[in-house]
Amino acid sequence: MPLTRTPLLSETVRKLLARGASVNAFNILNRLHAADVAGILGDLPEQLRREAFKTLHQRNLTLASEALSELGPERGALLLSEMSPQEISELLQELDPDDAAAFVSTLPSELQESILGAMRTKEASEVEDLLQYPEETAGRIMSPKVFSLHEETTVGEAIRKLQDAGDVEMVFYIYVVDDQGKLSGVLSLRQLLLKRPETRIKDIMVTDVIRVTADTDQEEVAQLVASYNLLAVPVVDQQNNLVGFITVDDVIDVIKDEATEDIFRLAGVDTDERVFNAPRTSVAKRIPWLVVNLATAFLAALVVSQFEGAIAQFAVLAVFMPIVPSMGGNAGNQALTVMVRGIALGELSWANSRKALLKEILVGAVNGLATGVIAGLVAFWWKANPWLGGVLALAMLGNLVVAAVAGTLVPLVLRRMKIDPALASSVFVTTATDVAGFLLFLGLGAAFLARFQ
Amino acid sequence: MPLTRTPLLSETVRKLLARGASVNAFNILNRLHAADVAGILGDLPEQLRREAFKTLHQRNLTLASEALSELGPERGALLLSEMSPQEISELLQELDPDDAAAFVSTLPSELQESILGAMRTKEASEVEDLLQYPEETAGRIMSPKVFSLHEETTVGEAIRKLQDAGDVEMVFYIYVVDDQGKLSGVLSLRQLLLKRPETRIKDIMVTDVIRVTADTDQEEVAQLVASYNLLAVPVVDQQNNLVGFITVDDVIDVIKDEATEDIFRLAGVDTDERVFNAPRTSVAKRIPWLVVNLATAFLAALVVSQFEGAIAQFAVLAVFMPIVPSMGGNAGNQALTVMVRGIALGELSWANSRKALLKEILVGAVNGLATGVIAGLVAFWWKANPWLGGVLALAMLGNLVVAAVAGTLVPLVLRRMKIDPALASSVFVTTATDVAGFLLFLGLGAAFLARFQ
Repeated sequence: MPLTRTPLLSETVRKLLARGASVNAFNILNRLHAADVAGILGDLPEQLRREAFKTLHQRNLTLASEALSELGPERGALLLSEMSPQEISELLQELDPDDAAAFVSTLPSELQESILGAMRTKEASEVEDLLQYPEETAGRIMSPKVFSLHEETTVGEAIRKLQDAGDVEMVFYIYVVDDQGKLSGVLSLRQLLLKRPETRIKDIMVTDVIRVTADTDQEEVAQLVASYNLLAVPVVDQQNNLVGFITVDDVIDVIKDEATEDIFRLAGVDTDERVFNAPRTSVAKRIPWLVVNLATAFLAALVVSQFEGAIAQFAVLAVFMPIVPSMGGNAGNQALTVMVRGIALGELSWANSRKALLKEILVGAVNGLATGVIAGLVAFWWKANPWLGGVLALAMLGNLVVAAVAGTLVPLVLRRMKIDPALASSVFVTTATDVAGFLLFLGLGAAFLARFQ
Repeated sequence: MPLTRTPLLSETVRKLLARGASVNAFNILNRLHAADVAGILGDLPEQLRREAFKTLHQRNLTLASEALSELGPERGALLLSEMSPQEISELLQELDPDDAAAFVSTLPSELQESILGAMRTKEASEVEDLLQYPEETAGRIMSPKVFSLHEETTVGEAIRKLQDAGDVEMVFYIYVVDDQGKLSGVLSLRQLLLKRPETRIKDIMVTDVIRVTADTDQEEVAQLVASYNLLAVPVVDQQNNLVGFITVDDVIDVIKDEATEDIFRLAGVDTDERVFNAPRTSVAKRIPWLVVNLATAFLAALVVSQFEGAIAQFAVLAVFMPIVPSMGGNAGNQALTVMVRGIALGELSWANSRKALLKEILVGAVNGLATGVIAGLVAFWWKANPWLGGVLALAMLGNLVVAAVAGTLVPLVLRRMKIDPALASSVFVTTATDVAGFLLFLGLGAAFLARFQ
């Protein structure tokens, strides 16, 4: 088995680099898979990471570029920031064109031009072609180096062509094109082995090929590959000309990125954020969401201020007041999360939403009743006041039903309006449960004020 | 191209079923890929879904079982609930053993026995073998039907054996074993095509095979396959005997499930929950988390109650009081989410955590200052009270630093203690920001009380 990355190995590499033994460090890295090299680079402090990458770049350009590709554009770009356009070009032209395009697109546009200018013409034009397609589409993540054969090829010729083809990525499906270069069929490598050499591939290929167009959203591509259990999918242009293919390993990256996007959007974090962004970037990315939350918090404060008189008379109201929106916020978030994931996984649609809503209302009412009764009893015992306990229980029941309705309907309505439900749902749901929570508890509290004292 | 699922197609199938034309509905479903059949079944109301599945089961057992497999155990098991053990066995023995095992494991144990008893002996024993392995391990999700060849096989013989092998899943890598059945190498289908028929595969195989043992956690398997860009990984037992293999399509399911798990755990939702669980199940799954939240809400109430006197004197404190924990909760959740995802993606470890903490404190302080100043100015303008504004601004600054520290350290410490950071982090972080938020604002408020009036 090859060496694999372990904390011990990272530590050894760090120590070697720290005492200037960068060649020894390189000798370790050089025996590893690129993914493990990337992992170790990620573990190193920034200065040593640049040092290690510089040595790698000088001594094994292929491994350096592969490790860069494994790190991905967000983390990898930091390594490039102190290099010359010439050096960056050397690295990027070793990458698959889709990976190189992903890196180039993160750079400032003047730098993009000088890097593409310094790359070999063939590689530069492949990257430029991919950059024509919008971000997050099939065209941007496809490999243009697709292995294809003409319909009239025989099995014997096909095998010879496969033997001669060097520079192709993971060939497992062979795509078949007609005279005009239009995609007409597909066959697997294994099918080639099963047939006589003189058979024309036209006669054995599968003609109903699952394909995507270059402008298809990458999330759709991922869903297609995942649900049909494909290893790769061919990409065609509007005229059905074969222009590239997307392999399952790129699809895995898309699935991970899209899951990160959902997780981050639910928490009000920008989808590009990473643990080791510059602090300035993180501030800029998070503050808009905090300001929105501040506005909704003031809205809640406005509700509370309507009951200042009641609170001044009976300050205990202020003690129990935060419990109701807190519980509502949690319950609403639970419902919301189940809905957002249900939408993402294709289990929930507008068509079956009524059933989901009724279920959530029932769940909210039962949970509201159960936790409301517990909270009411604790309040009764603490302040020896049954009316206070009753008001708290009732407000919680009501707010958990509000949470259920908001948690279910907000993501569905956003989805219906073609807005990503993960993006904006939680602020609406929290606002609803905050406002309703204070209103219910303080409203009921003010109504029963005479009973409290 | 094959028919693909569209809302229109779902609607047509629904209408046909609704007026009893189940054979016509079947004729449509029968032209679709199993994944699309599963999608349409998911769109149908429950009664019609059972109806459609019954017809499918009678007329095309293979498609019915494939669709069942695509639906997955959670949603698929509902379709089985009204069937006899005999009918369930018929369906499950058509599935790949790992899929069948996933279904069987969701059933009550008496039913498990009668279903396994009714299955063909070979299939039943394959499923039973897989069920020996713990849930969420490589052994549970592997296919035991692995295509392997002996080291001494020649390329010519290998090709003949491949031609004869019917019942094997996606062969793209060929695993090579020695006399004792121990895994000794691997080669790709393409390599077979490149060599002369008399070459022994021992001489052309790659010997440093990336492999996993049957007890490896499925998440680790997924990370391995994803980071090394594999299409499949062989599974061995403790003695290195080849016992199965895991294909990339199963890995995609694991990646999706693990992302769902993280998303749900962050929101306090049980990982098995789905939109259309029975309401009773959802209540049972969500209420423990709500009770935990209730306890922390009472803890916050206890903090507020220490300042009852101050609030009674100056009820405006109660108006602004909820803003501080709300902002802290949001900021803490942002930091927490970035950390949890960073841990899941392998970017954050205990080793580089100090840097992450310092960065988060800086981000928290800047965001706290910015939003604190805004909030302070609004409060000053609203209540014409500069001291109130100052207290609010200061409390927010302090609480956003608390949020940063808690949001960074809680997941790291949980991880260090081998607890899933997504599972329990948010309750600790929220408790910290609630308690600190009320304490800071009301404490400062009480200290400056004389200035307010």
